Amino acid sequence: DSHSGDFVANLAELVAIKSVSGEPEARDETIRAVHWMQKRLNAEGCTTRLVDPGLQTLPDGTRIPLPPVLLGQLGRTDPHKKTVCVYGHLDVQPAHMSDGWHTDPFTLTEKEGKLYGRGATDDKGPVLGWLHAIQAYNNTGVELPVNFKFIFEGMEESDSVGLDDVVIAEAEGANGLLADVDYICISDSNWLGATKPTLTYGLRGISYFYIDIEGAAKDLHSGAYGGGVHEAMTDLVALMNRLVDTRGRILVPGVMDAVLPLTPDEEALYRTIDFNSDEFRDIEVGARRLIHNDKVDTLTHIWRYPSLSLHGIEGAHSTPGAKTVIPGRVVGKFSIRLVPNQDPNNIERLVTDYLNQEFNKLDSPNKLKITMVTGAKPWLADPNDPNFSAGRKATKTVFGVDPDLCRDGGSIPITLTFQSATGKSVLLINMGASDDGPHSQNEKINKWNYIEVTKVFAAYLYELARMGEN
Amino acid sequence: DSHSGDFVANLAELVAIKSVSGEPEARDETIRAVHWMQKRLNAEGCTTRLVDPGLQTLPDGTRIPLPPVLLGQLGRTDPHKKTVCVYGHLDVQPAHMSDGWHTDPFTLTEKEGKLYGRGATDDKGPVLGWLHAIQAYNNTGVELPVNFKFIFEGMEESDSVGLDDVVIAEAEGANGLLADVDYICISDSNWLGATKPTLTYGLRGISYFYIDIEGAAKDLHSGAYGGGVHEAMTDLVALMNRLVDTRGRILVPGVMDAVLPLTPDEEALYRTIDFNSDEFRDIEVGARRLIHNDKVDTLTHIWRYPSLSLHGIEGAHSTPGAKTVIPGRVVGKFSIRLVPNQDPNNIERLVTDYLNQEFNKLDSPNKLKITMVTGAKPWLADPNDPNFSAGRKATKTVFGVDPDLCRDGGSIPITLTFQSATGKSVLLINMGASDDGPHSQNEKINKWNYIEVTKVFAAYLYELARMGEN
Repeated sequence: DSHSGDFVANLAELVAIKSVSGEPEARDETIRAVHWMQKRLNAEGCTTRLVDPGLQTLPDGTRIPLPPVLLGQLGRTDPHKKTVCVYGHLDVQPAHMSDGWHTDPFTLTEKEGKLYGRGATDDKGPVLGWLHAIQAYNNTGVELPVNFKFIFEGMEESDSVGLDDVVIAEAEGANGLLADVDYICISDSNWLGATKPTLTYGLRGISYFYIDIEGAAKDLHSGAYGGGVHEAMTDLVALMNRLVDTRGRILVPGVMDAVLPLTPDEEALYRTIDFNSDEFRDIEVGARRLIHNDKVDTLTHIWRYPSLSLHGIEGAHSTPGAKTVIPGRVVGKFSIRLVPNQDPNNIERLVTDYLNQEFNKLDSPNKLKITMVTGAKPWLADPNDPNFSAGRKATKTVFGVDPDLCRDGGSIPITLTFQSATGKSVLLINMGASDDGPHSQNEKINKWNYIEVTKVFAAYLYELARMGEN
Repeated sequence: DSHSGDFVANLAELVAIKSVSGEPEARDETIRAVHWMQKRLNAEGCTTRLVDPGLQTLPDGTRIPLPPVLLGQLGRTDPHKKTVCVYGHLDVQPAHMSDGWHTDPFTLTEKEGKLYGRGATDDKGPVLGWLHAIQAYNNTGVELPVNFKFIFEGMEESDSVGLDDVVIAEAEGANGLLADVDYICISDSNWLGATKPTLTYGLRGISYFYIDIEGAAKDLHSGAYGGGVHEAMTDLVALMNRLVDTRGRILVPGVMDAVLPLTPDEEALYRTIDFNSDEFRDIEVGARRLIHNDKVDTLTHIWRYPSLSLHGIEGAHSTPGAKTVIPGRVVGKFSIRLVPNQDPNNIERLVTDYLNQEFNKLDSPNKLKITMVTGAKPWLADPNDPNFSAGRKATKTVFGVDPDLCRDGGSIPITLTFQSATGKSVLLINMGASDDGPHSQNEKINKWNYIEVTKVFAAYLYELARMGEN
């Protein structure tokens, strides 16, 4: 607690680096954030390495350097200790005052116990949590009871371009950083609410699709051509309407076949979770009614059942005002969140076959192309393994309560890569609160979360060493 | 013909004035275009007046001056002559090199008989045509056989804000410019093809609708909320899919009721029109197949039957890339082109009732609002009246062929205002070719069209005076 001022000062310094990975003109700053973190880790006695993942090709064909991946460990490996590797990212989402920020997004601003700034909760706060946890061991002269390793990247908000290869190489190479790792821990997601700590043991996968329909060689004026031509928008809307109904039921045949039935044990687990449907509906969503009234139904449908969302249309009129255009070519975008045992390749086949078949029924001369642009498998861990036990005990030590064991409806594909590349358990310890707004305006982290969960990190490293088995 | 160099020089000078009415920062230039034209008309002996239509309120609440409307007439009114008033506009659509122009849009560039530049065909070329027509009379010392009046505006590409009131006031006031007018002539549309001159006697009206659906107070992450919430996009796509089918048939009950049946006489008229469906499909549209194979079916469906086009969605993901958003609020946009005897107020009621009823079937808790943002009636003239006879004879004199009498699927609401405010015949003489690209990149006018149709204008003034009746 006596160091909390330093912790906030460090966060302010890191937030001030505009490491927006999605903006090519901010690439130097993103690289600078990696170097900044390297220097801090070195100061704590870490040995570090920068791995160059190569070049990124931008949509316009330009190629720019990817930020290096920062790897390393604290001190030398002690073969008598368990080895844990933590992961986090130093890049952030874009942020501009004009988006509706109340304070400069790159100047950390404290108000009523909240630290506002881009990256405060996603993911600069959590990454610094690890730095401060090992600093605490160093400062108190207590030897770290585990071998501590880390992988921090600078492209997470841009699909972690290049990271998969680095993780796989480090896991497979005999001298790779991950060759002798026992546990993986990631802190890059948030609590389910604002007061009760959570650990996460499952993430949904995702299949993201483009429905590309070309009706004319160019945009046409609706006055001059309307009534004479087969409009691409009409076909697209017909296909999008056949994907999902108002109650969120997926209409693509076969997609639900692989979904495991909910067991009574699972249902009981969901029943115990601290979650208030009314607050979720009124405060988080701002809707009149949710699809499901029951808490368990809502949680299972956002975490352990698939969902299909229509995201939008590229190529159509999308700005304010009344444009009288017949768009020549439109691209509808939707995605399906996947759960065990759905496989993206199978989903791709089912969706493509179904949409082609429905399109044939329309008897349209337009050109259709279905593409799955992302296909990431779901991830599910065993929340009773030693990694999770250590996380649970550490949370109990700091907060005095057992954390809720949650799944998360989102997708962090690198989680599955860590698990499958190493064959080891991956644990997600969440630092921020549900209302932090990671990708929104006025992103913040509560000072309380930032400090207390840093203590959980330190306690977790201690508990890991005490795990009896293997 | 000997003055064609001067005509092109004048067009170059006027095109160089960046009178983009849709860009508030170009307002000074738009006003300058009106003043430029006033000076030229004054030099030909016209008396002119500028009417200030007041202020324009921009979407952000700023108020800026509207360009003045330029009114006037050549010399003094001779009560023994018929009086004609011509209309045109001096403002243009936006244009930037980055849109794909091959030459600077505001530098008139001649290539192979084509004059490229923003406004060349829409509508600076035609407006100058009138100037040059009266110049020709002045230069040859021939007295103009009609009283020549004009109304030129600077807001046509921005809904002619303010013009309706000016036209009505000039028609209703005892000393108004339009109080004693016999004929109206507008040149602001193009030929049906590239070789045969046309006159236009009908325009479709338009009812433009917004379907506004709010599902959540903000955009949501599809991972965290997908499966739990009623998504606005799902409802919107369901409603948009119930408006029109792949073959362009409007699905809103009652909308087709007022449409007059096609008479054998009408059909015969369409049959004679010089129109090549294959070229229309391959060159103008760039599609594999049109809705209708037959020439008459295509022409009637783009000119004299209503059509419904889905223009796009505001508020959804519309940029390149794969964003995993559940849009909180979306606005679907579509319009119906109207024909005699459809009435926008009736269409508004039919569409609103139908969409509300279909939305109720969805049993969605989301908030729906239907708004008709534009409602303009169709316009249809008698192509056998003296105004059209004069236009036909003038065309025959210059081109040696009778013009095709066409309707146009687009909407120029001011046409109907002129007709209803004065009770007089409105004729549309077209100057440009079908491939001029009025609102597109690389807008052009063929030098041949520009010069020859200017001669038609001059001949039309002569023919008007010879019309026997009234």
